[in-house]
Amino acid sequence: MAKRNSNRAAARGAAPARRASAAARDDTEITALELPPEKLTPEMQAYFKKCEEKLGFVPNVLTAYTFDMAKLSAFVAMYNDLMLAPSGLSKLEREMIAVAVSSHNKCYYCLVAHGAAVRALSGDPPLGELMAMNYRAARLSPRERAMLDFAVKLTAEPWLIEDADREKLRRAGFSDRDIWDIGAVAAFFNMSNRMATATDMRPNSVYHGQAR
Amino acid sequence: MAKRNSNRAAARGAAPARRASAAARDDTEITALELPPEKLTPEMQAYFKKCEEKLGFVPNVLTAYTFDMAKLSAFVAMYNDLMLAPSGLSKLEREMIAVAVSSHNKCYYCLVAHGAAVRALSGDPPLGELMAMNYRAARLSPRERAMLDFAVKLTAEPWLIEDADREKLRRAGFSDRDIWDIGAVAAFFNMSNRMATATDMRPNSVYHGQAR
Amino acid sequence: MAKRNSNRAAARGAAPARRASAAARDDTEITALELPPEKLTPEMQAYFKKCEEKLGFVPNVLTAYTFDMAKLSAFVAMYNDLMLAPSGLSKLEREMIAVAVSSHNKCYYCLVAHGAAVRALSGDPPLGELMAMNYRAARLSPRERAMLDFAVKLTAEPWLIEDADREKLRRAGFSDRDIWDIGAVAAFFNMSNRMATATDMRPNSVYHGQAR
Amino acid sequence: MAKRNSNRAAARGAAPARRASAAARDDTEITALELPPEKLTPEMQAYFKKCEEKLGFVPNVLTAYTFDMAKLSAFVAMYNDLMLAPSGLSKLEREMIAVAVSSHNKCYYCLVAHGAAVRALSGDPPLGELMAMNYRAARLSPRERAMLDFAVKLTAEPWLIEDADREKLRRAGFSDRDIWDIGAVAAFFNMSNRMATATDMRPNSVYHGQAR
Amino acid sequence: MAKRNSNRAAARGAAPARRASAAARDDTEITALELPPEKLTPEMQAYFKKCEEKLGFVPNVLTAYTFDMAKLSAFVAMYNDLMLAPSGLSKLEREMIAVAVSSHNKCYYCLVAHGAAVRALSGDPPLGELMAMNYRAARLSPRERAMLDFAVKLTAEPWLIEDADREKLRRAGFSDRDIWDIGAVAAFFNMSNRMATATDMRPNSVYHGQAR
Amino acid sequence: MAKRNSNRAAARGAAPARRASAAARDDTEITALELPPEKLTPEMQAYFKKCEEKLGFVPNVLTAYTFDMAKLSAFVAMYNDLMLAPSGLSKLEREMIAVAVSSHNKCYYCLVAHGAAVRALSGDPPLGELMAMNYRAARLSPRERAMLDFAVKLTAEPWLIEDADREKLRRAGFSDRDIWDIGAVAAFFNMSNRMATATDMRPNSVYHGQAR
Repeated sequence: MAKRNSNRAAARGAAPARRASAAARDDTEITALELPPEKLTPEMQAYFKKCEEKLGFVPNVLTAYTFDMAKLSAFVAMYNDLMLAPSGLSKLEREMIAVAVSSHNKCYYCLVAHGAAVRALSGDPPLGELMAMNYRAARLSPRERAMLDFAVKLTAEPWLIEDADREKLRRAGFSDRDIWDIGAVAAFFNMSNRMATATDMRPNSVYHGQAR
Repeated sequence: MAKRNSNRAAARGAAPARRASAAARDDTEITALELPPEKLTPEMQAYFKKCEEKLGFVPNVLTAYTFDMAKLSAFVAMYNDLMLAPSGLSKLEREMIAVAVSSHNKCYYCLVAHGAAVRALSGDPPLGELMAMNYRAARLSPRERAMLDFAVKLTAEPWLIEDADREKLRRAGFSDRDIWDIGAVAAFFNMSNRMATATDMRPNSVYHGQAR
Repeated sequence: MAKRNSNRAAARGAAPARRASAAARDDTEITALELPPEKLTPEMQAYFKKCEEKLGFVPNVLTAYTFDMAKLSAFVAMYNDLMLAPSGLSKLEREMIAVAVSSHNKCYYCLVAHGAAVRALSGDPPLGELMAMNYRAARLSPRERAMLDFAVKLTAEPWLIEDADREKLRRAGFSDRDIWDIGAVAAFFNMSNRMATATDMRPNSVYHGQAR
Repeated sequence: MAKRNSNRAAARGAAPARRASAAARDDTEITALELPPEKLTPEMQAYFKKCEEKLGFVPNVLTAYTFDMAKLSAFVAMYNDLMLAPSGLSKLEREMIAVAVSSHNKCYYCLVAHGAAVRALSGDPPLGELMAMNYRAARLSPRERAMLDFAVKLTAEPWLIEDADREKLRRAGFSDRDIWDIGAVAAFFNMSNRMATATDMRPNSVYHGQAR
Repeated sequence: MAKRNSNRAAARGAAPARRASAAARDDTEITALELPPEKLTPEMQAYFKKCEEKLGFVPNVLTAYTFDMAKLSAFVAMYNDLMLAPSGLSKLEREMIAVAVSSHNKCYYCLVAHGAAVRALSGDPPLGELMAMNYRAARLSPRERAMLDFAVKLTAEPWLIEDADREKLRRAGFSDRDIWDIGAVAAFFNMSNRMATATDMRPNSVYHGQAR
Repeated sequence: MAKRNSNRAAARGAAPARRASAAARDDTEITALELPPEKLTPEMQAYFKKCEEKLGFVPNVLTAYTFDMAKLSAFVAMYNDLMLAPSGLSKLEREMIAVAVSSHNKCYYCLVAHGAAVRALSGDPPLGELMAMNYRAARLSPRERAMLDFAVKLTAEPWLIEDADREKLRRAGFSDRDIWDIGAVAAFFNMSNRMATATDMRPNSVYHGQAR
């Protein structure tokens, strides 16, 4: 892990060796910060092993957090609850929110990683592109459109969200618990997008070709 | 708890009884969503008790999460790590970031609760006002100014953050670990601000008079 | 007066003595400009005396204008007509507009001074906070909401104001004269906010604790 | 006067009689508000007479204020001090600020009336067009450019004005008193622009052909 | 032609000789780029001759393109088709779109040249001013207003255009072909405005006095 | 061709048949407008044939223009000159500008079609993603970065482009002719993006899988 995180600072300032793949160093220089990894706790060791079994790799965001086990555990707990626990929103819907929010924030890491998730979960590659490019150009159900309109307004101008916005979700068939979940997923990616940008976090290059 | 959370929906649409205090219902109708509370886990019961002992009350954000113990625990774990664990940033500096970010996002809940924290931790009430109103008008040390400039740029236009921004922090004396923490606190309040706005979360009214 | 206005330039560039109160020099270094005061005219002498009797102090904005009696008189005449003369708008309503406009413009001077006025006139401290933080989060009467929506739209995007906006005010019960007054108070604070920011005008520190 | 002000309401809603001149009713329906004029005070009567002698007409903004002599007097006093009293800024420079600020705010009244003033005072019609269209496209002296950059930044994002902005003006040769005047003229037109838009104030049609 | 295009670079950096007319060099230093003209093709020679006969001069935009006959021909072909070929939009309507779009983009060249066209085609000088200053302040027919609302939204926030926007045009009486043409004229000036700004293209000074 | 263009109107308003591919109708309902195609001129017939031979398909943007041969020819002439004729910019550089501009404008059609071109010309799929998501996150040469910074500033805030911006390009090694070409490609896609959005133009679905 240490290696994966350690040689960015050395490279900083050096003239970029162009026309290597744009993703050339993304799998080894994961962030712009020099943060030596801690030893994984047994719990996190098990979790990383599970990632490798299920995905074939450990997502770089997890590697980025390995410098501090408390932060890593807190991130994993919140992420898994939001994106995988039972909810009135399907997993695909939650990933659609993730990508539409990340599109507004132009977050390279999240667009690559969660764009792949939308493609995989939907079996529909262009849907991932639409979420990343402009969700308004997609042919969505009224439910999906209301969900994304709320998530993106909450992202762009949170101070304008009012009862009328929640009512639109209710009229589209969402329960109060669903409204919490839409808000929570959109809010979480507003955090993650900024964490990724603050540290120049790079996505695993394997995502690019997935589910095309 | 249920009571505190339950009668907003009934009130919705009813003409507001004006010139009651603007904070009149803030302690009983905490969010705009009807989400019946779960029974607190022993761990959370202990935590709420500690809040009441130390603060004299349970912050409304915690009450808002009581409908789901997994979400409550994840939120508490992340919040406490970020705001209270050892860091190169003082607790006051972390609260200053919280308020400056919340000011950009115009989040009523966080401005009230964390504005009080800045006043209390600094012993300087106008400092809390400056963070909430326009941090650029405050007479800050170069370190504080660099920290807040990064946090607010990351909030307003995260897509523009680049190596040059991280270099400015390094030149102001921050380590790579400090940069992570500045980014993480700013990112967290970009989540919390949106969670509060998505649900119309109301701050405990007791905050208003604290440390004035 | 001269003293109050004269030593900012000397301090410029000097490293700020931090953790003095953020408002430490606000009562003595009122603006960033060196402008030696003129002798007050008898009329202004009487007015300043009245301020001291009624408020206990002379608001710093008046001191800032003492370098030129013609400008001071013109400012006082316009201010008093707008904020104190008979109008279909109550004094509290006019102060609410002042604060909501100043919030959009992030004007430290006006938020502090007029936030105190909203607290005092309403007897409701959180109402002042809401106007300064995000008026949309306040539980307002339809009349108040329509008034502030017009004032803030006129502040943020004046080029979009059209007949339909004036009609909304009429439907909320405002007369044509009231519309003038809403526009005039909002417009005046768009001037004052910029005058305060152009000169780095500092509010009297006494405002911070008033009517909490 | 009454007549000039009274028939807008009747016309409201009626289908516009197109391809009459766009300025057809501008000299008779001066604002969108029905506000019956008061009798002019002797002082204002003299002032209006002077306008007719010097300009050939009474500017519509003055007519718009005739419903209230106190407001009219306060406006005239402030306007004349700012735009005509001795200052380190020439009258042309003050008018250039007026037009550049009004361009940002897209204020039809002020662009027409003060665009004519720039053309007349400079004897250079394209200079008026450049101030109204994009002052950055004009070939300006460094002094003029610094002055307009400050005025337009103060208009667009007043919250970003800091000591560094005032220093740029000092380096361009402006005194502290000049800085006040630049700020004051820019601030005043931020008020006037909004007063004009709030009331849909129309410029005297004679301005259009002046000094072309 | 060469002369008209060649001496800007020499002048770059030189202190502007102020209070010469703001348009002094606009007819000789047409762009900020040194691009030696090619020999006109016979077709373009005939076209320039026609311009001089009909307009009395060759518009500077054409001169700017003379460094490359292929680019000049492509521009002329597209321009003439859009602005002069048969369409459900009158020539005046097309010029109104040109100016309203150029106003959003603050393009000096296009505002001057096409503002003159609106004045000439309408016989109504203030209409040209309104398009350049704020089309919302003009008293327009519902058809004209719908057309300009679409064109300016497409200019400012193209990503928000959806079926509902096209439906508003249909309800205002526009056919699908008309919608294409409104979009095409607005889109073309979004190109031309940027071409003019990228090169600092200057309008022929003769436009300023036309049709006043 | 007619068929490809004709049944969108029928579908308008109908509930979208979800979880068909998001691109399901993109190859048959190319725009939201009903515009019956004209017979191709021999020149255009040859051009379409060449497209099918070289690309395997006719790009939908060409089909969209088939309702009017004059418009189609003018578009093809300008496009081919800009993107394919000799220039100091490589074809890849021109496509990088196309995608970065289209990313700012969130244009689905151009992001899909020209994103594929960047992937193909560079042989580097992630480079296409970076241009579409946030070019600032790409590791670019100083030349490429200067080129894209100019193109995107010209797209987002054309009114701010000045001599200093052109100087930055010169310092990065670009000639005046190169500056024209950078401006021209950026300007062209500001037109094309809006043409595509105005008509809801859909990209050929084959692009999605190309060069991944």
